[in-house]
Amino acid sequence: MSFSPLIRQLIDALRILPGVGQKTAQRMALQMLERDRSGALRLAHALNEAMERVGHCKRCRTLCEEELCPQCADPNRDDSLLCVVQAPMDVFAVDQTGFRGRYFVLKGHLSPLDGLGPEAIGVPELLARIAEGAFSEVILATNPTVEGEATAHYIAQLLIPKGLSVSRIAHGVPLGGELDLVDGGTLAHAFNGRKAITL
Amino acid sequence: MSFSPLIRQLIDALRILPGVGQKTAQRMALQMLERDRSGALRLAHALNEAMERVGHCKRCRTLCEEELCPQCADPNRDDSLLCVVQAPMDVFAVDQTGFRGRYFVLKGHLSPLDGLGPEAIGVPELLARIAEGAFSEVILATNPTVEGEATAHYIAQLLIPKGLSVSRIAHGVPLGGELDLVDGGTLAHAFNGRKAITL
Ligand SMILES: [Zn+2]
Ligand SMILES: [Zn+2]
Repeated sequence: MSFSPLIRQLIDALRILPGVGQKTAQRMALQMLERDRSGALRLAHALNEAMERVGHCKRCRTLCEEELCPQCADPNRDDSLLCVVQAPMDVFAVDQTGFRGRYFVLKGHLSPLDGLGPEAIGVPELLARIAEGAFSEVILATNPTVEGEATAHYIAQLLIPKGLSVSRIAHGVPLGGELDLVDGGTLAHAFNGRKAITL
Repeated sequence: MSFSPLIRQLIDALRILPGVGQKTAQRMALQMLERDRSGALRLAHALNEAMERVGHCKRCRTLCEEELCPQCADPNRDDSLLCVVQAPMDVFAVDQTGFRGRYFVLKGHLSPLDGLGPEAIGVPELLARIAEGAFSEVILATNPTVEGEATAHYIAQLLIPKGLSVSRIAHGVPLGGELDLVDGGTLAHAFNGRKAITL
């Protein structure tokens, strides 16, 4: 009622951002219009470029616009360690702990009730990636939730018979949380305390 | 380091949003890329349209893309009441209380130390607006801060000699706050308890 159509349209559009409700969207819209129009135009440009050009890394399947992401393209990483996570944000979180091996990003976790089996989350691609690599250890860093645990257990069952050393990050990470919300120190601790998985 | 250049660019651009730090910007960027690219493209479009086409209402100076904003264009409002606020967001906040008169939006408050005198905040335009209208009461709803009070007092000194009834919203609003953060009930109360200003 009080806002003109283009301002209303902007407020509505801002609400797609996680954690942004009506009041916050209003403040964002008016503040940009009053104080930082060039910043807002840069944001529009960055959104367009990212949404149109960012795809997935051919090797690890994280989000990136090149064929290979910065982690896969980096020649100075440990090719004997593979860390499996369930979302691109987790690559960033694990990298912050100082891990310098390689990554593979699943598309979420197994969820049979939603019809999400191994193919849906990229397990065949993970197996292919492992087959073409020379990994001595695979670290399963899916979320410390019931679903993340089940996904890690499922993958461990496939990898252990291949003679790979398979580990799970230690339960220093709080149960029920999302990996990328864990502080770096806790996550580093969980990494160091990782344990071999036995079937 | 972990994000590709276009994703980094998007994260940096998101940080212009008020209240959005590095971690929040990362989550926003990746969540849009993973789950809502069409929503993100709509946001880019809404940003471009708003930044390029939204200007100021000719009559009340709030933000809008038409010559007149919805409040000024509405024929069913009380033309005898003028509410003076110091930012476009405050028009929305006051309208939420049920006020149905007209508005005038100053460009902030008087700030002599920053070189912001009456001309800088639009006082001449306010006087012109009052001269062309037929207001019986002018309600000064600048922020309940020291600067907002001083600005209201300065304007009252100009208007009272013209024979206008000038009022200030009551101090139901907490001192030191910003008007648009006040809950609607408190603001409605402050409106009803407004008092005539005497010099
Ligand atoms: Zn990669
Ligand atoms: Zn207007």
